[in-house]
Amino acid sequence: MARNIASREKDYSQWYLDVIKAAELADYAPVRGCMIIRPDGYALWESIQKHFDEAFKDTGHVNAYFPLLIPISFLEKEAEHVEGFAPECAVVTHAGGEELEEPLVIRPTSETVIGHMYSKWVQSWRDLPILINQWCNVMRWEKRSRLFLRTSEFLWQEGHTAHATREEAVEETLKMLDIYRDIMENILALPVLAGEKSEGERFPGADNTYACETMMSDRKALQAGTSHFLGQNFAKAFDISFQNRDGELEHAWTTSWGVSTRLIGAIVMTHSDDDGLVIPPRVAPVKVVVLPISPDRDLVDSKLMPKSSEIAETLNAILGKRSVKVDTRFHMRPGDRFFANIQKGIPLRLELGEKEYQREVFQAVRRDNGERFDIPWDQAAVKVPEILEDIQHNLYNRALEFRKQNTFKAGNFEEFKDIFAGKGGFVEAFFAGGKEEEKLIKEETGATVRCFPLEREETGTCFFTGKPGAKLAVFAKSY
Amino acid sequence: MARNIASREKDYSQWYLDVIKAAELADYAPVRGCMIIRPDGYALWESIQKHFDEAFKDTGHVNAYFPLLIPISFLEKEAEHVEGFAPECAVVTHAGGEELEEPLVIRPTSETVIGHMYSKWVQSWRDLPILINQWCNVMRWEKRSRLFLRTSEFLWQEGHTAHATREEAVEETLKMLDIYRDIMENILALPVLAGEKSEGERFPGADNTYACETMMSDRKALQAGTSHFLGQNFAKAFDISFQNRDGELEHAWTTSWGVSTRLIGAIVMTHSDDDGLVIPPRVAPVKVVVLPISPDRDLVDSKLMPKSSEIAETLNAILGKRSVKVDTRFHMRPGDRFFANIQKGIPLRLELGEKEYQREVFQAVRRDNGERFDIPWDQAAVKVPEILEDIQHNLYNRALEFRKQNTFKAGNFEEFKDIFAGKGGFVEAFFAGGKEEEKLIKEETGATVRCFPLEREETGTCFFTGKPGAKLAVFAKSY
Repeated sequence: MARNIASREKDYSQWYLDVIKAAELADYAPVRGCMIIRPDGYALWESIQKHFDEAFKDTGHVNAYFPLLIPISFLEKEAEHVEGFAPECAVVTHAGGEELEEPLVIRPTSETVIGHMYSKWVQSWRDLPILINQWCNVMRWEKRSRLFLRTSEFLWQEGHTAHATREEAVEETLKMLDIYRDIMENILALPVLAGEKSEGERFPGADNTYACETMMSDRKALQAGTSHFLGQNFAKAFDISFQNRDGELEHAWTTSWGVSTRLIGAIVMTHSDDDGLVIPPRVAPVKVVVLPISPDRDLVDSKLMPKSSEIAETLNAILGKRSVKVDTRFHMRPGDRFFANIQKGIPLRLELGEKEYQREVFQAVRRDNGERFDIPWDQAAVKVPEILEDIQHNLYNRALEFRKQNTFKAGNFEEFKDIFAGKGGFVEAFFAGGKEEEKLIKEETGATVRCFPLEREETGTCFFTGKPGAKLAVFAKSY
Repeated sequence: MARNIASREKDYSQWYLDVIKAAELADYAPVRGCMIIRPDGYALWESIQKHFDEAFKDTGHVNAYFPLLIPISFLEKEAEHVEGFAPECAVVTHAGGEELEEPLVIRPTSETVIGHMYSKWVQSWRDLPILINQWCNVMRWEKRSRLFLRTSEFLWQEGHTAHATREEAVEETLKMLDIYRDIMENILALPVLAGEKSEGERFPGADNTYACETMMSDRKALQAGTSHFLGQNFAKAFDISFQNRDGELEHAWTTSWGVSTRLIGAIVMTHSDDDGLVIPPRVAPVKVVVLPISPDRDLVDSKLMPKSSEIAETLNAILGKRSVKVDTRFHMRPGDRFFANIQKGIPLRLELGEKEYQREVFQAVRRDNGERFDIPWDQAAVKVPEILEDIQHNLYNRALEFRKQNTFKAGNFEEFKDIFAGKGGFVEAFFAGGKEEEKLIKEETGATVRCFPLEREETGTCFFTGKPGAKLAVFAKSY
């Protein structure tokens, strides 16, 4: 176990921060509640972005950029929206040496200013749908911050679409939820429960909110992405209206959806261990590190380095530019070099010392399970990509198995309370309560409805109210 | 000439805004001085970003993210810096429903907060160099804004590096200047004068500022990118110090360099014409538009559309995903469809009507010179990339020729004044004046020293002060 990382069992919160620190993913900023995303953390974010961005574009979405500052009066146009966000806003009162006539808030989300622009861009049904996404920073003031999970400023994408019909907007909401699920599962190796949020957890101003919920290794849930069906609420507040094919004026139907740098927190808390960070290969910026190791500097220069550079070049051509790194920190002790790469979460290490050189092999070490084995030089180009895929699947399956083992059923509140009095986890229960019942359950157990999973259509008697025909809900404590 | 675009000759400012509006690149935001970058403008920015980002990474730089908000006290640590930027800052005084103890400014640039972090990350010479870049939004409050050229919020990249020696930092400053010049010339087709700025135009807090200066089609100069050698100014203000190889404590040497969404303005004002936007092919998000055209809907569905999709697919595989678009706006009149694509600046149009279909050709139309010619179907995969390259070179050469024809020499102030009393342009003159002389020249002519070009080492008698041994400067009116 690493001396610079707390044990997961003993202190999960400290372990989380230690893993991030040891991997140099992020630092707290001098401004309270804000963070600095360090180069290795940012490279991970760029890799995450690339996968989502490509999927958005493949489904006809385009990127744009809307302003950072929003007049307070815009927020006030949608009653639930301002109630939800105004308390968290950072407010600009002065600029250019003068007091502003109207204070401006730093965007906590952009439905309002985007709604304002859409009302100008949309006149006819031919102008619809608008399928725009924005990658940007947003600000929601936090008293208690936590790197990646809850910071005053964070990076995200926010999709904002407008449609001619309710049906099309609902379809878009669910399509984006499914794109999120797909990338989270297949690229980030996060098993996802995709479902509808309860009334109490809805986005301020939405008719329905859907979310991807994932289980962290402390059995708590993390909401990893949300997709909102906004009905005509924002279209009415900002007058996004259009002439339909029959020449009649109608309000548009809108959606919004987002994922953020929070996903880095999800990766950390799903896959990492007491030795530090573990990154799934498909999203890892550096997938392989090659370590030439020898106290004999001549051997290093004449043989180990040339061979290391050669395999790096070969693998980069297969895995993508800059996917393979050669570690040249010869001033460090070998053990420290191993550890530095382990803590960075690099999926596969290829060691090359004198013995390996003579036998024309690399000694490979998998980050996910610590397994060591030889890979002959002439098989590396084939074997390495295979092993990386195997690591990817192993990480996903391990997380899925963990979720299964920590998912329970509760038929009544006693059973429910017992689970959360113990280790907790995900609890499946039929539930027909509203905001009030959710509040009572949370007060007594700390758990909330994470979602009503989309793929589970069975109904039954509500574990809390006893009402029949209740939908299946999944409860958990959450981040 | 387009009815929705003013003539360049008659009203250059209006022409510029009309071109941007017709191409749907950007809109003014509801917040004064801010802009919305619309999807086609943002796609152009993404394409610009991709080229710069790749060049930064190829030279060992990594991306990171630093916070949006900076304590005012940080700016105050570097005297010239705060003097230069404080008057332009937007200030957050309230957040989370409370008044802040210390007001925070929205970053106008990030030397200060990055300096603060570097002081924590750097201990030994082994921690150097730090080669970090950040892509982000910044804010400098503007009273008179102009889309892309001067807006309160804009997008940019800011590179911030720290080095163990002065020599290495100077080398970095000039290396990044040269990377800027290379991409501007070879990708954006902007002929560049790269050189050192005069004392009066230096970045607040820099020892030396270098810039890439380009000539717009109204003969004014636009500063398209800058690279600053910051000496030890910020290292001393923020205590970025390290133990050198001899165990002694030294301050680091830092640089910073940036290009912004201003480059979109440079593209517009260098290449566009009275019909609207012209984008050089290498940076154009959409390089080719295919237009199936016929009033006969059956012909469109059965023959023109399948053939259009086929060529789009073939060319996308060669030119890059989404480089080729098929225009399916059959509800518009053919003339309007031509015009819509012309105004978007798409380098090459391939028209496919009944006649072309029968002859198995596309009618190609170049955006740069309006030339029309046939391309047989079976030659398109070879010809189209060749024509795009020819357009690229033609745009660059045309801009370079324009600059040459509008560059003059002045031996004394009378000659100098005559030039700027006329059409203006770039004026080469030996100059040994300081801030005071620069001010006088500007007051009388509107022109300023754009730079002392690096490649011109000749010296002569100063046209203004009569001093001998003066360096060659290039003067112009500027944006």
